Amino acid sequence: MPKGCKYGTHRVIEPKGVLPQPAWKIDNTMEIYDNEILIDVHTLNIDSASFTQIEQETGGDEGKIAQKMLEIVSQRGKHHNPVTGSGGMLVGTVREIGKDLQGKIDLKVGDKIATLVSLSLTPLVINRIKEIRKEIDQVDIDGQAILFESGIYAKLPDDMPETLALAVLDVAGAPAQTAKLVKPGDTVFIIGAGGKSGMLCLHEAKKRAGVTGKVIGMGHSEASCKRILELGLADVMIQGSATEPVDVLKKVEEVTDGELADITINCVNIPNTEMASILATKDKGLVYFFSMATSFTAAALGAEGIGKDVTMIIGNGYTKGHAEISLNVLRENPKLREVFEKLYA
Amino acid sequence: MPKGCKYGTHRVIEPKGVLPQPAWKIDNTMEIYDNEILIDVHTLNIDSASFTQIEQETGGDEGKIAQKMLEIVSQRGKHHNPVTGSGGMLVGTVREIGKDLQGKIDLKVGDKIATLVSLSLTPLVINRIKEIRKEIDQVDIDGQAILFESGIYAKLPDDMPETLALAVLDVAGAPAQTAKLVKPGDTVFIIGAGGKSGMLCLHEAKKRAGVTGKVIGMGHSEASCKRILELGLADVMIQGSATEPVDVLKKVEEVTDGELADITINCVNIPNTEMASILATKDKGLVYFFSMATSFTAAALGAEGIGKDVTMIIGNGYTKGHAEISLNVLRENPKLREVFEKLYA
Ligand SMILES: NC(=O)c1ccc[n+]([C@@H]2O[C@H](COP(=O)([O-])OP(=O)(O)OC[C@H]3O[C@@H](n4cnc5c(N)ncnc54)[C@H](OP(=O)(O)O)[C@@H]3O)[C@@H](O)[C@H]2O)c1
Ligand SMILES: NC(=O)c1ccc[n+]([C@@H]2O[C@H](COP(=O)([O-])OP(=O)(O)OC[C@H]3O[C@@H](n4cnc5c(N)ncnc54)[C@H](OP(=O)(O)O)[C@@H]3O)[C@@H](O)[C@H]2O)c1
Repeated sequence: MPKGCKYGTHRVIEPKGVLPQPAWKIDNTMEIYDNEILIDVHTLNIDSASFTQIEQETGGDEGKIAQKMLEIVSQRGKHHNPVTGSGGMLVGTVREIGKDLQGKIDLKVGDKIATLVSLSLTPLVINRIKEIRKEIDQVDIDGQAILFESGIYAKLPDDMPETLALAVLDVAGAPAQTAKLVKPGDTVFIIGAGGKSGMLCLHEAKKRAGVTGKVIGMGHSEASCKRILELGLADVMIQGSATEPVDVLKKVEEVTDGELADITINCVNIPNTEMASILATKDKGLVYFFSMATSFTAAALGAEGIGKDVTMIIGNGYTKGHAEISLNVLRENPKLREVFEKLYA
Repeated sequence: MPKGCKYGTHRVIEPKGVLPQPAWKIDNTMEIYDNEILIDVHTLNIDSASFTQIEQETGGDEGKIAQKMLEIVSQRGKHHNPVTGSGGMLVGTVREIGKDLQGKIDLKVGDKIATLVSLSLTPLVINRIKEIRKEIDQVDIDGQAILFESGIYAKLPDDMPETLALAVLDVAGAPAQTAKLVKPGDTVFIIGAGGKSGMLCLHEAKKRAGVTGKVIGMGHSEASCKRILELGLADVMIQGSATEPVDVLKKVEEVTDGELADITINCVNIPNTEMASILATKDKGLVYFFSMATSFTAAALGAEGIGKDVTMIIGNGYTKGHAEISLNVLRENPKLREVFEKLYA
């Protein structure tokens, strides 16, 4: 096969001229171009917002979830949820490396890798769905996928189980960005703190804000609030719903003496939490939206609507060193690793 | 009437507990609470993305545009386009000031103001549509609107016509943010450079990037490219479509010796331009999305999908001093003012 575009545009079927991510449909023929990598897929880690949507649509029935997933892939050539627009990631074994890439990358046939690009742009074929682990959004399949030349990946570390590494790598962008954004002395507010990305962000926030800073977590369930306090990940926990902005504002005012947060990090997996994030942040502060359920217009117009001068950042799933930074959180924090092993491995 | 919530939650009809912007429907009864302001509306400046959508849906027929606008307001109590999620702004005369605000704000009955909060959260009643100026997305009406206590506004300046000020204030956030983000020596790439916000951003970018910087504009039509070069607003102009990312990348590479842009500012009024913005920006660079047609997931997953470490900012319509900064662009640049007068006044 010839050499394809490094970004994978050669596989876009419709609409023409766009990249594989925004494309409606891509070509999932499992014969690789000279600069592609073929992967035997073991496990899909469906993006939390996407999996939640599919569960709701199917009433949580496993047979129907499987059917919906097969339907998405057969329609689009990729697991790109048409409602949430999001994907997820996968773990698999390298089956074949295109000849233009051989010797140029640090991979060989047989290596176990996690792809760090979204499933929403990854050519995928599912032959069979073997097991659905609903609590952790993971689905074991028999299938294959293709990685483009620009696609990033991580070799799976040998000091932790595969499912654990996968859970962490799925949300690697969030703790890595937190590490870059939080400065000593900052008041940091993390919404959805009890989830996967939330807990990793708490760890980085506490490390970076230091003793002069303050880390406030917000959990939805009592269980997650309790867990976080026991882990010592947050200085203060707030329990409530991020879909109720005025209530969130009041609670954040209380625990910050009315000062509000320098940085708010949104890690929830449900829509309509933009306003709570904006209201909880001080003027000239920063809101980092990692949640894929964020609406661009709701954020832009919401901030304007209340005359709030905050910088709002779209959570880029990638930032340099994100795989290393996030896996390292678990190495630094054995208690957190224990919780992750219990919950996600 | 009693005192309402400063953010206007007392007017939210459904869903309960949210703010007026994300609300589906708000109460547009034109009797004010003690901390609200009643405005007699002269002109609506419909957000460009919203107006373009309505024009397309109605085939551009003026009667049908009017009907669609009335329908939106009667359904939602505000001019909140259900497809684009965006609003616009308005100009009117202060009719009544709630008693809690009297003497506390710099407004009196009879003052002419532009509201600087989105129409997507402003209680509005349209009694009659008087004139639709399709080329500039402005609609004269007989109607009334309400401003909440947290709502921001600008008194109309007396050194320029009302429609001109309105056109500038509508997009005030963009040049003000450009002024804050661009540093001397930066290579700045502005997509949708020929539009209202685009031209204002070009002026600020050139001023801030200085002689050591480089300002590259991208226009869609030949006319707008020519106009910008004549105005001396950009160092280089690229003509093309921002929906074709690979083509845009090639052109930006050419004019930057492969270095790409430090900052890309997206001012288009159409969807599917996220990838062009991301591809044109260098690693560690910054993408500022002012366009309301931006999709959060397309940006987040698109950047991740090609492993690009860029910071992506959601264009907050408000930033401190934005009205002053944007109106001042026209005072600083008489040639640009002439063009604005011809096009938008
Ligand atoms: N930007 C990117 O590149 C990228 C990449 C991967 C994932 N994501 C997104 O990141 C988000 C989080 O992912 P995750 O895997 O960390 O999710 P997760 O483990 O499922 O955690 C979600 C958290 O949201 C909380 N939550 C749910 N409803 C809430 C409410 N009404 N108020 C406050 N909190 C609420 C839950 O709290 P309780 O535990 O207390 O119930 C839970 O802890 C998702 O939206 C996902 O799509 C983004
Ligand atoms: N974030 C906020 O708070 C906020 C507030 C107000 C407005 N906005 C948004 O800002 C955006 C711009 O508003 P505006 O009033 O400046 O719009 P505008 O005057 O209508 O300009 C839009 C520009 O987009 C260009 N364009 C159209 N299709 C294109 C394509 N395929 N490739 C490249 N360029 C293309 C047009 O180029 P030509 O002139 O060459 O045809 C035009 O110059 C809109 O999306 C609006 O919704 C945001």
